[in-house]
Amino acid sequence: MNTFGQLYRLTSFGESHGKGIGGIIDGCPSGVELDMNFIQHELNRRKPGQSKLVTPRKEADEVEFLSGVFEGKTTGTPIAFIIWNSDQHSSDYDNLREIFRPSHADYTYFSKYGVRDHRGGGRSSARETIARCVAGAIAKLILKQLGVSITAYTSQVGPISLPLGYQHYNLALAEENAVRCPDPETAESMAAFIREMKSEGDTTGGVITCVAQGVPAGWGEPVFDKLQAQLANAMLGINAVKGFEYGGGFDMTKCRGSQINDEFCIKDGKVSTKSNNSGGIQGGISNGEDIYFRVAFKPVATLLRNQSTVNIHNEETLFKARGRHDACVLPRAVPIVEAMTAIVLLDNYLMYRARKRPLD
Amino acid sequence: MNTFGQLYRLTSFGESHGKGIGGIIDGCPSGVELDMNFIQHELNRRKPGQSKLVTPRKEADEVEFLSGVFEGKTTGTPIAFIIWNSDQHSSDYDNLREIFRPSHADYTYFSKYGVRDHRGGGRSSARETIARCVAGAIAKLILKQLGVSITAYTSQVGPISLPLGYQHYNLALAEENAVRCPDPETAESMAAFIREMKSEGDTTGGVITCVAQGVPAGWGEPVFDKLQAQLANAMLGINAVKGFEYGGGFDMTKCRGSQINDEFCIKDGKVSTKSNNSGGIQGGISNGEDIYFRVAFKPVATLLRNQSTVNIHNEETLFKARGRHDACVLPRAVPIVEAMTAIVLLDNYLMYRARKRPLD
Amino acid sequence: MNTFGQLYRLTSFGESHGKGIGGIIDGCPSGVELDMNFIQHELNRRKPGQSKLVTPRKEADEVEFLSGVFEGKTTGTPIAFIIWNSDQHSSDYDNLREIFRPSHADYTYFSKYGVRDHRGGGRSSARETIARCVAGAIAKLILKQLGVSITAYTSQVGPISLPLGYQHYNLALAEENAVRCPDPETAESMAAFIREMKSEGDTTGGVITCVAQGVPAGWGEPVFDKLQAQLANAMLGINAVKGFEYGGGFDMTKCRGSQINDEFCIKDGKVSTKSNNSGGIQGGISNGEDIYFRVAFKPVATLLRNQSTVNIHNEETLFKARGRHDACVLPRAVPIVEAMTAIVLLDNYLMYRARKRPLD
Amino acid sequence: MNTFGQLYRLTSFGESHGKGIGGIIDGCPSGVELDMNFIQHELNRRKPGQSKLVTPRKEADEVEFLSGVFEGKTTGTPIAFIIWNSDQHSSDYDNLREIFRPSHADYTYFSKYGVRDHRGGGRSSARETIARCVAGAIAKLILKQLGVSITAYTSQVGPISLPLGYQHYNLALAEENAVRCPDPETAESMAAFIREMKSEGDTTGGVITCVAQGVPAGWGEPVFDKLQAQLANAMLGINAVKGFEYGGGFDMTKCRGSQINDEFCIKDGKVSTKSNNSGGIQGGISNGEDIYFRVAFKPVATLLRNQSTVNIHNEETLFKARGRHDACVLPRAVPIVEAMTAIVLLDNYLMYRARKRPLD
Repeated sequence: MNTFGQLYRLTSFGESHGKGIGGIIDGCPSGVELDMNFIQHELNRRKPGQSKLVTPRKEADEVEFLSGVFEGKTTGTPIAFIIWNSDQHSSDYDNLREIFRPSHADYTYFSKYGVRDHRGGGRSSARETIARCVAGAIAKLILKQLGVSITAYTSQVGPISLPLGYQHYNLALAEENAVRCPDPETAESMAAFIREMKSEGDTTGGVITCVAQGVPAGWGEPVFDKLQAQLANAMLGINAVKGFEYGGGFDMTKCRGSQINDEFCIKDGKVSTKSNNSGGIQGGISNGEDIYFRVAFKPVATLLRNQSTVNIHNEETLFKARGRHDACVLPRAVPIVEAMTAIVLLDNYLMYRARKRPLD
Repeated sequence: MNTFGQLYRLTSFGESHGKGIGGIIDGCPSGVELDMNFIQHELNRRKPGQSKLVTPRKEADEVEFLSGVFEGKTTGTPIAFIIWNSDQHSSDYDNLREIFRPSHADYTYFSKYGVRDHRGGGRSSARETIARCVAGAIAKLILKQLGVSITAYTSQVGPISLPLGYQHYNLALAEENAVRCPDPETAESMAAFIREMKSEGDTTGGVITCVAQGVPAGWGEPVFDKLQAQLANAMLGINAVKGFEYGGGFDMTKCRGSQINDEFCIKDGKVSTKSNNSGGIQGGISNGEDIYFRVAFKPVATLLRNQSTVNIHNEETLFKARGRHDACVLPRAVPIVEAMTAIVLLDNYLMYRARKRPLD
Repeated sequence: MNTFGQLYRLTSFGESHGKGIGGIIDGCPSGVELDMNFIQHELNRRKPGQSKLVTPRKEADEVEFLSGVFEGKTTGTPIAFIIWNSDQHSSDYDNLREIFRPSHADYTYFSKYGVRDHRGGGRSSARETIARCVAGAIAKLILKQLGVSITAYTSQVGPISLPLGYQHYNLALAEENAVRCPDPETAESMAAFIREMKSEGDTTGGVITCVAQGVPAGWGEPVFDKLQAQLANAMLGINAVKGFEYGGGFDMTKCRGSQINDEFCIKDGKVSTKSNNSGGIQGGISNGEDIYFRVAFKPVATLLRNQSTVNIHNEETLFKARGRHDACVLPRAVPIVEAMTAIVLLDNYLMYRARKRPLD
Repeated sequence: MNTFGQLYRLTSFGESHGKGIGGIIDGCPSGVELDMNFIQHELNRRKPGQSKLVTPRKEADEVEFLSGVFEGKTTGTPIAFIIWNSDQHSSDYDNLREIFRPSHADYTYFSKYGVRDHRGGGRSSARETIARCVAGAIAKLILKQLGVSITAYTSQVGPISLPLGYQHYNLALAEENAVRCPDPETAESMAAFIREMKSEGDTTGGVITCVAQGVPAGWGEPVFDKLQAQLANAMLGINAVKGFEYGGGFDMTKCRGSQINDEFCIKDGKVSTKSNNSGGIQGGISNGEDIYFRVAFKPVATLLRNQSTVNIHNEETLFKARGRHDACVLPRAVPIVEAMTAIVLLDNYLMYRARKRPLD
C-alpha cells in the first residue's frame, strides 16, 4: 500500500510522467515551524540535473503545500503537498508502449494490475521518492529539536569503497562533492567510475551508509516492530535496494561472540557501551548509542544498449533504452535514505511518547 | 507492537519463563484442515534439546489450540494457541536480577518499560518465536494448496560457508543433519565448529538462505509494502538478525547493470527471465521466478565467560552466564525464517486476491 | 486520523478556506472506467448554491484528478484528487480570529492543537466531506457492477417527518426536489420549514435514511468490525451527526422478541427473511436482505443571532455569525451519507473477497 | 477483524462452547498495578447466574493471566488472558446442528465461512464480550489515575424508561439492584417486566446510558476517528446493539439551533458550556464536559417458543429454543458498555499524549 508509518504517516501518490508527485502527511504535531528553505534544500539534493553525474532531466521540483499549514506553522491536520511534473518528455517512452524492460517493474505491474502505463515507469519510477523527501524533511525539523541528527553518504560505488567506518570521516564533507562521499579522493574515483559507466551505456550500483545520532534509549516497538525491522522495511521499500544490514551486519556472522559483544560501562555517569557492534539497537529498542546501517543499491536497470526482452503479446524482442537516465543512483539516493530514516525515527519517538512514564 | 500482517495476522504473547508462549491468528481462511502432525513437526524443528548442537533446555513444546478450530478445520474465527512452558529453571537467572547482560535486550527493555523481568530475557527471548512457527505452519498448509513451497537452510556458520547458490544443492538434505545444511560435508564442518565454540564457552553466527518456489507473478503491494520490504521487515524482526539481502544482494552492488540485468524470454509459452538476480521480485511484486534471500545472524550474546557490564544501580560489574544456552542459533532459526516467510507470502496472496480482476 | 477504510482507503486533506479539499484513494482495483460525468454529478449534489435552500457560497467544486488514472481507467495505484477552493471570502471570518463559536469545533481544535485557524472552521468544516463524495462516487461505480445500489433521502426535517418506512416510497423522487425527500408534499412542508428557520436566523436538524440493496450474504468482519459498527463509525464521522440506528433501531427496544424476530423462509429457492427488523445484518454480517439505517443530524450551529461565548483570552463575549450559511444541512448531507456507505460496502466486499472460498 | 484500538489494543478469541474466551492486550503502559479484585469484580458484573433475572448458566468466569504481568505490575509487553469455559452443556445445542435460528448469526456465519459451529452460537455468542471486560477493567484502572470515571446504567427496559437525564440520579445506586437502574422504584418495575417476559418464553430489549466524567479537552482524532465515531463503532460492535446517540441525540433533530446550541462561559476561570447538548464532544474532540450517550439493545433473539425458520439444506422448519437464556441482556450489558468506553478513552488518551505539546 501507499501509506508508511503509524503515528507520523505519509501517504504518497503520483507517477513519473503524470501531473505530479505528492502526498499527505498525517499525524504531524502542530506548531512546527516549516522552514521552507530547508525543505526545498532537501528536495534539491535528490533533484535530477543537479550535477553532471546524474540524469539531465530538468525538473524544478518545487514543493507546493496544499493544506495543514497556517501562518507558517503546522496545524496538526493533514499536510498535503504536490511537486508538479514539468519536463515530462513522455514521447521518450513511446517505444515502451508494448515492451517490458528487463529488471524493471513493467512486467510485474502489468501482471498485477493489467495496465501498461509505459510513461517512464509510471508509479514504479523512483521519482515517487520525492514525496518521501518532503515528509522526511519535516521529520528532520522536528528531530533536530529533539537533538537527533541523521546523515547518510555514499560509501561504495561499484568496486570502489571507503575502507573505514563512519567514525573515521568528516561526514560534513559528503555534501561537498557530487557523489556524496565524505572522502574527497575516493569521491573523485567514484565519480570517474560513474562517468566511465555512462560513456559505455552501462550502469553501476553501490552502498549508502546512514548514521543517526542523538537517539535516546527507549525507541522501538518489539517484537515485530523492532526498530531495525522498521528501518529494514523502510530501506527495502526504496527502489533498487537489494540489502540492509545494521551494526556489525553480515561481517559479524563470521565472528565469535566474544569478539563482537558490546560490553557495558559507565561513561559520564550514564550507561554506555565500549563498542557498538549492536548498531545502537538491542532487542529492537535504541540503547542511546549511534544507530548506523548500510543499504545496498543494485546497478540502474536502464541500459543504453541492446537487451533481449519480451512484449505484452508474449513475443521475444530486443530493447535499447533512450532518453535521460542515471548511470548510478547513489548520489541522489542519499537524501532518500535519510528521509526514510527520519520518518521511522519520528514515528517511533511519537510511539514511545504515547506510553512514556509517568502517565499524566 | 506484537501484531504482524494485514489480512493474515499473528498477535503473539508470552515470556521465556512465564506460563507459556502463544498467539492469536486472525484472518485465516475457513475450512482449512489443520494437520496437527505437520504443525507439531514444525515446532519440533525449532525445539530446544533436539540435538547435541543446541541448548539442552527440555521443553515438550506441544501446541494447544484454544479456539478457531471445529471438527479439525479452521472456522474463519481467531485461532488462539499456547505452548506451555515447563522446564523453566527460573533460578538459573537469579543472578541476573540486577544485571544488564552485554548485547542483550536487558538494558533497553529496562530503559523503555522501567521493569526488569530478569527471567531469561522475558519477552525478548527467542522463545517467543515459537508462536511464529505455529502461524507459519498453518500458512504453509494453505500455501501448499496453492503450489507454493518454502525452504530455508543454513548456508554459513561462522567462517564456514557453502560456496554455491541454492540451485546447486538438494535442499531436502538439509533436514538430515543437525545443522540444517544441505551439503553433508559442509554440515559436518559446521557442526564441528559449533562444538568447538561451545567447548570454549564462546558462540558463533551465520547465514540462513531461504527460497520460495511457486509464487505466481503479482504478489506484493508497492510502494511501501513491496514484497522485499515486507520480507526484510519480517526477518529483521527475528532475534539476532543483523542483515537481509535478496536476489543478487550486496554482491550485486559491485557489478555493472549489463552483468546483472535479468533479460526476459519466453519459456513454455510464458514470460520468464534468463537469469534471476532480481530474486523473483521486481518493483516490489513477484514475477513468477524463485524468490530467494539471505539472512545474517550474529553470534549468540550469552557467553559462558566473564564480561564487563553494569547493573541497574549504574555500577560497573562483571558477569558470567550460567545455565543452558545455544552456541549457535542457526539450526533452530531455519524453521523460524521459513515461518515468517510463509506468513508474509500468505498475507500477500490474500491481499492480491482481494482486488484480483475480474471483480465478481 | 484522516484515513478511512482497510482495503479501499481514503485519506483526505484540506480546509474550508485553504487552497482546496482533496484526498488519496488507495487500494482501488485497477481497470475501473471512471465515469467523470457521474463523479461530478455526485459532487454537484452536495455543492453549495445548488438551490435556494442551501448556502449561496459559490463553488464550482470541480474535481481534478492528479494520479492513478490512465487512459480513463484506474491503474491500481493511488488516485489523488483535489477540488480547488475559489469563493473563499476569508474576510467573512475575520471577526472569528479570537472567538470560539458555540457548538462548533473552534474551542476543541484550539485545545488540542494550540492553533486557531479561524477561516470558516478550517479543517473542521463540512466542506471536507467533498473528498468523501469523490471516493464514494468511485466506490458506487464499482458496486454498481456488483449489483449493489445505495440510496439516501431526507426522512425528517425538524418536527416534520415521513411516517412510513423506505419501502413505501418511490425513492427516485427524492432527487426531484431541493430537500431530497421522496414524498413531494412532505418535501414542500420541509422546504417551507427550512425557509422559515432561515428567515429567523435560526436553523434546524433532521434525519437521513439510507438503504443499500443488492448486498449479498457474507459481508462484514466480526467481532469488532461488524458491518453495522463500521457503518456507525462512518456516519458518526460526518459533521453534525448525533445518532445512528439500523434496522428496527431504538424503536425495537420497546418490543418483545416475539414481535420483532425475523423468521427465515425460502423465497425463490433461497434463504430469506419474512420481516427485516435486523436491517439486513445479523451477527455483523450481511444476510442478503436490504441494509437500512437512519442518521440523526443536529441543527446547524451557525446562527445569525447573538449568542454568549468566550474568546481565546478566556473572556466572555457575544457573537453573531455573518456570511453565508445553511439553515439545514440535510439536503446536502444526503450524498455524503451515500458516499460513506459506498466506501464501507466496497471495503467489505474486498475484505470478503480476500478469503472467499474456495481458495485459488 | 478481532482487534480493537490503535495504541491500546485488544485482540480477542474464543467461542461460547470452546475451551474458553480470552484475548491479548497490546500497548498497555508498563508499571500499572493490576488490582485483581477489581478486575474480577468487573467480570462478575457480567457473569451469568449473578441474579434471578439472568441466565442460570454457571460459570466461574475467573480470569487467568498468561503473560505481561510481573510481580503484580504490567511490564509493557502483551497481556494475554483466558477465562476457561466450564459449564458448557454443548448437548443443549445438538438440535441446532442443522438449523439457522431466527435473528441470530447462524445463517450469516454459515454464508460467510461455510462452517456451522452450532454450539451456542460459537464465536457470535455474547460470551465473547468477557474479553472486553478484562481489557476494559485494566483501562479503567489507568483512567482512574487520570481522574476519569465511567458509569453506565440501564435507563430503559422494554416500555419502561427513566424519565430524566443522568444528572438527576445517584448513579451509584445502579449497582444495588439486579437491573442496574439507579432509580430503585423503576428498577423494580423493570425487574418485574423481565420476569414476566421470561415466564412467557419471550424477551425484551432496552437502552443503556453511559457517562464519562473527567475527560479533559483534547481527546479524539478527527476527521474519521472523531471520538463519537469511535464510541459508536465500539457500541455497535456489541451483540444486540441497534443504535447509538450521544448528547442530545435523535431528539435534537427536532429542535432549533437556538434551542440546543451550547453557549460557552467561564466557570472557575476555565472555559465551560452553559448546557451540554453536545455531549462533551465538539468536532470529534472532547471539550472537557461530561461525555454521555445512549445505546439501544434489541430484545434477545432466543425465544422459548416455536418459530418458523430454515435449515442448512434450504428447507423450511420449526424451531423452539431450549436451555438457559437471558430474557433481557441489559443488566449484564452495562459492564460491557463501560468496558468498551474505557478502551476507547484510554486509546485516545495515548493518541493525544503522543503529540501533546510541547514536544520533549
